[in-house]
Amino acid sequence: MTDSDKAKGYLDPEDWAAFRRRAHETLDRAIDKMEQAASGRVWTPVPEEVEAGLVKALAMAPLSAEGVDKALAELLPYGVGNTHPRFFGWVHGSGTPFGLLPAMTEAAINANCGGRNHVGLRVERALVEWIREVFAFPEGASGLVMSGTSMATVVAMKVARDAALDFRSREQGVDQSRLVAYTSAEAHACNARAFDILGLGSDALRRIPVDAGFRMDTGALEEAIKADREAGLRPFAIIGTAGTVNTGAIDPLQKLAAIASDERLWFHVDGAFAASGQLSERLRDKLSGIERANSLAFDFHKWLHVNYDAGFVLVRDGELHRRSFSSRPDYLKGTIRGLAAGDPWPVEYGPELSRGFRALKVWAHITEFGPSRLGQAIGMNCQLADTLAGLVDGSEDLERLSPVETCICCLRYVPAGGEPINLNALNEEIVTRLHESGIAAPSTTRIHGKLAIRVNMTNHRTRESDLHVLLDAVRALAPGAIEAVQQA
Amino acid sequence: MTDSDKAKGYLDPEDWAAFRRRAHETLDRAIDKMEQAASGRVWTPVPEEVEAGLVKALAMAPLSAEGVDKALAELLPYGVGNTHPRFFGWVHGSGTPFGLLPAMTEAAINANCGGRNHVGLRVERALVEWIREVFAFPEGASGLVMSGTSMATVVAMKVARDAALDFRSREQGVDQSRLVAYTSAEAHACNARAFDILGLGSDALRRIPVDAGFRMDTGALEEAIKADREAGLRPFAIIGTAGTVNTGAIDPLQKLAAIASDERLWFHVDGAFAASGQLSERLRDKLSGIERANSLAFDFHKWLHVNYDAGFVLVRDGELHRRSFSSRPDYLKGTIRGLAAGDPWPVEYGPELSRGFRALKVWAHITEFGPSRLGQAIGMNCQLADTLAGLVDGSEDLERLSPVETCICCLRYVPAGGEPINLNALNEEIVTRLHESGIAAPSTTRIHGKLAIRVNMTNHRTRESDLHVLLDAVRALAPGAIEAVQQA
Repeated sequence: MTDSDKAKGYLDPEDWAAFRRRAHETLDRAIDKMEQAASGRVWTPVPEEVEAGLVKALAMAPLSAEGVDKALAELLPYGVGNTHPRFFGWVHGSGTPFGLLPAMTEAAINANCGGRNHVGLRVERALVEWIREVFAFPEGASGLVMSGTSMATVVAMKVARDAALDFRSREQGVDQSRLVAYTSAEAHACNARAFDILGLGSDALRRIPVDAGFRMDTGALEEAIKADREAGLRPFAIIGTAGTVNTGAIDPLQKLAAIASDERLWFHVDGAFAASGQLSERLRDKLSGIERANSLAFDFHKWLHVNYDAGFVLVRDGELHRRSFSSRPDYLKGTIRGLAAGDPWPVEYGPELSRGFRALKVWAHITEFGPSRLGQAIGMNCQLADTLAGLVDGSEDLERLSPVETCICCLRYVPAGGEPINLNALNEEIVTRLHESGIAAPSTTRIHGKLAIRVNMTNHRTRESDLHVLLDAVRALAPGAIEAVQQA
Repeated sequence: MTDSDKAKGYLDPEDWAAFRRRAHETLDRAIDKMEQAASGRVWTPVPEEVEAGLVKALAMAPLSAEGVDKALAELLPYGVGNTHPRFFGWVHGSGTPFGLLPAMTEAAINANCGGRNHVGLRVERALVEWIREVFAFPEGASGLVMSGTSMATVVAMKVARDAALDFRSREQGVDQSRLVAYTSAEAHACNARAFDILGLGSDALRRIPVDAGFRMDTGALEEAIKADREAGLRPFAIIGTAGTVNTGAIDPLQKLAAIASDERLWFHVDGAFAASGQLSERLRDKLSGIERANSLAFDFHKWLHVNYDAGFVLVRDGELHRRSFSSRPDYLKGTIRGLAAGDPWPVEYGPELSRGFRALKVWAHITEFGPSRLGQAIGMNCQLADTLAGLVDGSEDLERLSPVETCICCLRYVPAGGEPINLNALNEEIVTRLHESGIAAPSTTRIHGKLAIRVNMTNHRTRESDLHVLLDAVRALAPGAIEAVQQA
């Protein structure tokens, strides 16, 4: 490339050998970081100078090659922490170094997977068929790799919405549809958010109480459906949860499927993390009924450890799915042969016309590890959650706040003796101090109003020793936290 | 790692040195592919054995390391073709090898950028501020990196919808809202699709006729607003297009902004590819008025050549944006310190709670190239479109079907003399043969009912010589295509 080419805006490297060296150095830094995943701090706050550097780099761009590489390297220590074995927060997968291989391949192919006729769509199609078989969905089921369960839920509930309204809603909207649906009080917020986005309003998604195990109370569900019908509303869907975010509970999916069938409702399962349990002998039975769903949303980046982001929507009736999203204007018309062939296109099954080749990392991950080993990682986490529950139950100063059904154990620290103290404030302070210490990173939630230290294990790097480190740190940080809360 | 660890499901490499070798080999293959971007065929159909291998790999998983690496390498030749200098289809960016650097760094960090307190959100915040300044939006404007303009439009129009309904729509839905909005007949389908998704129905987005330059007819717009008001409907938004997909036309944005202001409507700009022209001296004036928008959607993976996928939504009033999406249940409550701090979270501005670190590749790209060089690449493409138009206008056997305003030239082949022939069928056949030949890949559309060979240049690798190769190929393939159409 000449200076004149550069001035004209050609963006390929002038010196390919030099670029190749840069790339290999960047790769080594990335692998170094991953090789050290189990050591050092879980989480480190972003230093002010790093943050200021980010703004400055844009203002001064273009930087030199060295400047860009240095800037990228400086970011490595300041992630969420989810790659560390003592990251226990929310529900984050911990990733694997193998994700680098499809990431590099994806960058080289740089495909838009909204449509056209190319290998990106073939990889996704192979993956869809594999997933269909994992969940024992019938032939003709359809699926789409999405950014995550949030978006997968929007897609699934749009299909349900449009199917209930004979697809007239696509042109005419949902005016006076009177549609209502049901999920449990423990369901994830992304479900109500989908109703908000889809114009039905989050109030149209009824929250049904849960039983002592935090599973949907199916008696209350049946009453709610009856009451809504009597009020002239139109029940159209039930959303069951496979793995609630607070406690990891799994709704009685067989019973929900039966009610949906009797009432002629769409049965959707939010299986964000625990649907992956289908690969685990330990969880498969608990998920019984998931194969009866009309649609299923789940993530690969959670309990399957594909790198962020990668979720999925699976729809039992592929024709309904397509009718809810398909429309091909003149500039997207398909052909029989050539690059515009290959009907149907993914854009006919979801909102995105531009979409990256996310399917590749999922396909490569399953190909690398195989379903059995991924299932073992899940089983190992369930075992660790049981172990933690045992440790808590055997302690004087810890209280368990929820049953362990999958990989989550909610607990709190309760100081023995001493002055009365606000336990919610204390446990929140302990969690913040855990984060700041860099030792461990659980998150918090509330269980029956009690602030819980929520320990989630969707992390293939966690060993039993990490649980002891966690509890030791809780106890070591407690006196300081008590003092801080008392002084607040 | 021991066999027992592997059986338990730890997913890190047993042999890090061996993994490192694999990764470096994969990187070299990726760079080899990119270094050859300008040579060889534009597009190659996926061989059946490659497709069958994709399915087989999943069925047999886990494969050996060699098996996975071989499978990934086999995919490289079968992408969309958009990295080749003679890819002229739809509106695809052509990417750069530099995208490998943030891709590897992103994989190592593996962050979920839906929330929490980490460097992913800092990079995105720096980027949002930079974009805000590029488009001269006021302080307090908000933004979010999305998969593309399709999703960015859903977000923008949801904010507009909810703001028009005093945000009650979030809980209560859009029942009886009577909302209607306006865009041009040449607008991209993602706009109507957003209305479908949001429950307003695609009919609620009126299609206003265009002038001879394919720009929205503002007189017809004003009449439509008046008629809708008289019919008791509630106009709430105007969507202007900066770069139509058929011809690259830019609506009169200043005039649309003035009408929106007078009528108190939300002014959204779909700038999917041409909003990037803000970095180009050649286009900036044509985009005048974009700085008055209430919201703007555009892509980095189109005319800025960031790798797929990366789009953006920019909202003038960040508070309205947040009110349309924010909700923080117990398990996502923020704190003052620690990993759960860092209010506000991106999930308060969009539908995704799980979202990858897309902002990194955008940030790195701008840092690497700088706005001026990216603008030059845009200017170069506009120049090429003008050159092509000149070549067509000077030809006996080619007819130009649209004016060139940005980077698109629509043309068709019209054989001199000979028997009458269906020109639509002929030009479609020519485009398919171009694809199959591997020489060039334009797409097709219809302009006033005439099937056009649509030549789009959002490709920093294209040189003037590529235009001659394209036109020579059209002429070389025409006799065979004529024969095929006559025999059909």
